[in-house]
Amino acid sequence: MELEVYGHGGDLVTASARYGVAAGEWTDFSANINPLGPPPGLLDALREALPDIVRYPDPGHRKLVTQLASRLQVEEETLAVGNGAAENMALALLGLAPKRVGVVEPCFSEYRTLSEQFGARVLSVFGTEEQAFRAAPEDIEGLIRETDLTFIGQPNNPNGVQYGMDELRRFAAAGERHGTYVVVDEAFIDFIPESERRTLLPELGEYPHLILIRSMTKFYAIPGLRLGYAIAHPETARRMRDKQVTWSVNSLALLAGEYCLGADASYELATLALVKRQRDRLMGELTRLGCRNWPGEANFLLVRLPEPWTAEAMQTALGRRGVLVRSCAMYPGLTNRDIRLAVKDEPACGKLLRELEAVMGGREE
Amino acid sequence: MELEVYGHGGDLVTASARYGVAAGEWTDFSANINPLGPPPGLLDALREALPDIVRYPDPGHRKLVTQLASRLQVEEETLAVGNGAAENMALALLGLAPKRVGVVEPCFSEYRTLSEQFGARVLSVFGTEEQAFRAAPEDIEGLIRETDLTFIGQPNNPNGVQYGMDELRRFAAAGERHGTYVVVDEAFIDFIPESERRTLLPELGEYPHLILIRSMTKFYAIPGLRLGYAIAHPETARRMRDKQVTWSVNSLALLAGEYCLGADASYELATLALVKRQRDRLMGELTRLGCRNWPGEANFLLVRLPEPWTAEAMQTALGRRGVLVRSCAMYPGLTNRDIRLAVKDEPACGKLLRELEAVMGGREE
Repeated sequence: MELEVYGHGGDLVTASARYGVAAGEWTDFSANINPLGPPPGLLDALREALPDIVRYPDPGHRKLVTQLASRLQVEEETLAVGNGAAENMALALLGLAPKRVGVVEPCFSEYRTLSEQFGARVLSVFGTEEQAFRAAPEDIEGLIRETDLTFIGQPNNPNGVQYGMDELRRFAAAGERHGTYVVVDEAFIDFIPESERRTLLPELGEYPHLILIRSMTKFYAIPGLRLGYAIAHPETARRMRDKQVTWSVNSLALLAGEYCLGADASYELATLALVKRQRDRLMGELTRLGCRNWPGEANFLLVRLPEPWTAEAMQTALGRRGVLVRSCAMYPGLTNRDIRLAVKDEPACGKLLRELEAVMGGREE
Repeated sequence: MELEVYGHGGDLVTASARYGVAAGEWTDFSANINPLGPPPGLLDALREALPDIVRYPDPGHRKLVTQLASRLQVEEETLAVGNGAAENMALALLGLAPKRVGVVEPCFSEYRTLSEQFGARVLSVFGTEEQAFRAAPEDIEGLIRETDLTFIGQPNNPNGVQYGMDELRRFAAAGERHGTYVVVDEAFIDFIPESERRTLLPELGEYPHLILIRSMTKFYAIPGLRLGYAIAHPETARRMRDKQVTWSVNSLALLAGEYCLGADASYELATLALVKRQRDRLMGELTRLGCRNWPGEANFLLVRLPEPWTAEAMQTALGRRGVLVRSCAMYPGLTNRDIRLAVKDEPACGKLLRELEAVMGGREE
């Protein structure tokens, strides 16, 4: 049975049981979390706020919403804060009740899982290897025409590539033309330097069917707490909020969100610099080791192992050495030789490359 | 506009804005949380575990499920862990998709809110003042016959009373007879001493349509973290889990749940003793002050103020003095003179009684 029993990376409970490595001892390349960890001071702020868990969270997320609106330069009524970006996706599906949902394979498996969970039929188009698994814009337009809601990853997971502004505008315009909600999942967009980031956020007002979803757990390294948000037309945001269970977002997540939005910009810049440096290094070294990889722009890389390696064999070989990688064998459109690697810090990437070289060279230590 | 803008007590953000009392300075009788606070050592355990929020929660909640199964003497497959008991209610509605839902007014407003949120029509019967707002068993049986899913609070919120074992068995049998899911909300049952607790948990196997929902946030005083669970027939529990968004329960909630289940029994006994003592005291003193109250068995009391007091006037008068109470004016079946008071510790109850006496005597300090 595959290691990703829940369909995702980062499942250290399963990995530890399988490979006999303690949960705290993994070098985990299977979850795409900021290698710098949470912003300086966040853990201290949470430590101090712990006694507040005896009180209910604010069901209106009012302080965080005010801060987000100011930071993003949007109206408060366009926002829906979620218990992780995955909840925001679920709220879009519950609130908008699409009968047919479009996905662009390969992509984050929750687009399909959640859609089917909430009763929609899923239609898909495929990215092509030549386009680093971007799909042809006309295929995506066709998908938007045929569905009531279409998910687009920007940058897309697991390949890490972005669509250009012209393409995004084509997709959003197709959404308006056909009355189809276009959900752009920007969960990883904060890892892309602002000058290279492609987002329709400043043009949101022009596209009433456009929904942007962002995560705060990846960039700020707090996936255990759960925090995401959506930005959409006020009526759409309201329909999403209307499906949310009261108190769904916990107090510490709210506090963390408030803290992170006020965090020093140097943490963000340091993250971007580290990710770029280590991503370039990984791409170079992986190529040298005979792996194919695609030019991802985010904090993870899609990698094709050289024959005769399979993702499963590599996952097992590295797993026994305390290094966890994500198999991509179950992604429609990918192959059983594909893995996804998070971009981590210098020592972790060093360890990965050493262990990769060792297992690929057949050396056992 | 009423203070309960989100339909619940414990909204310190709104209360603070309205009465100019800082959020941390309230003596809050509007949320029914264990007055002893979290079990000894829990905050320290959470403090130590804070760095783990850089990892995803276990989407299978495996450790907590194992502990719950052992503690409750049920099979693991009968359990669904939720992001608060409210999520468990939502999962029942999403997983079982009832067209008509029954509620017994007055009751926790989320039964109705969530049902309507997820597209069900709500039918209701009413408890009677003479029966401390319990409804007649034949009325509840009739409700079960007419609906696909019926909620019953045990003890019920806001009146705090239980149904007897014979009544519970009648309701569960009616559920089987009519193919109606009977959801017994036991969110506050841990506040009732075991010898007085009325639950069908040991007989769960006899009623495939029975669902018990419990909260861990009230007794263990962690509402900010969100944690609840449901116990039901394995197929029902699976249908609930199938609607849950991956990682919905955060890491710290899981850790807190694991810790609380292992906590020393003396904390539980001390809680029960404190609640009984202060509840008896409140009942006596409130009667002396001319208030009517009903014999609640949990950690809160339903109270009818003497003429000419209204819930709103009392809430305002006490709010200005830093004491927060829950107006029950919006509960169907109750009146605009009804409030709900949590049972808190000796000093807090003393403060409440002093302030109540002051405002009812017209004294301003």
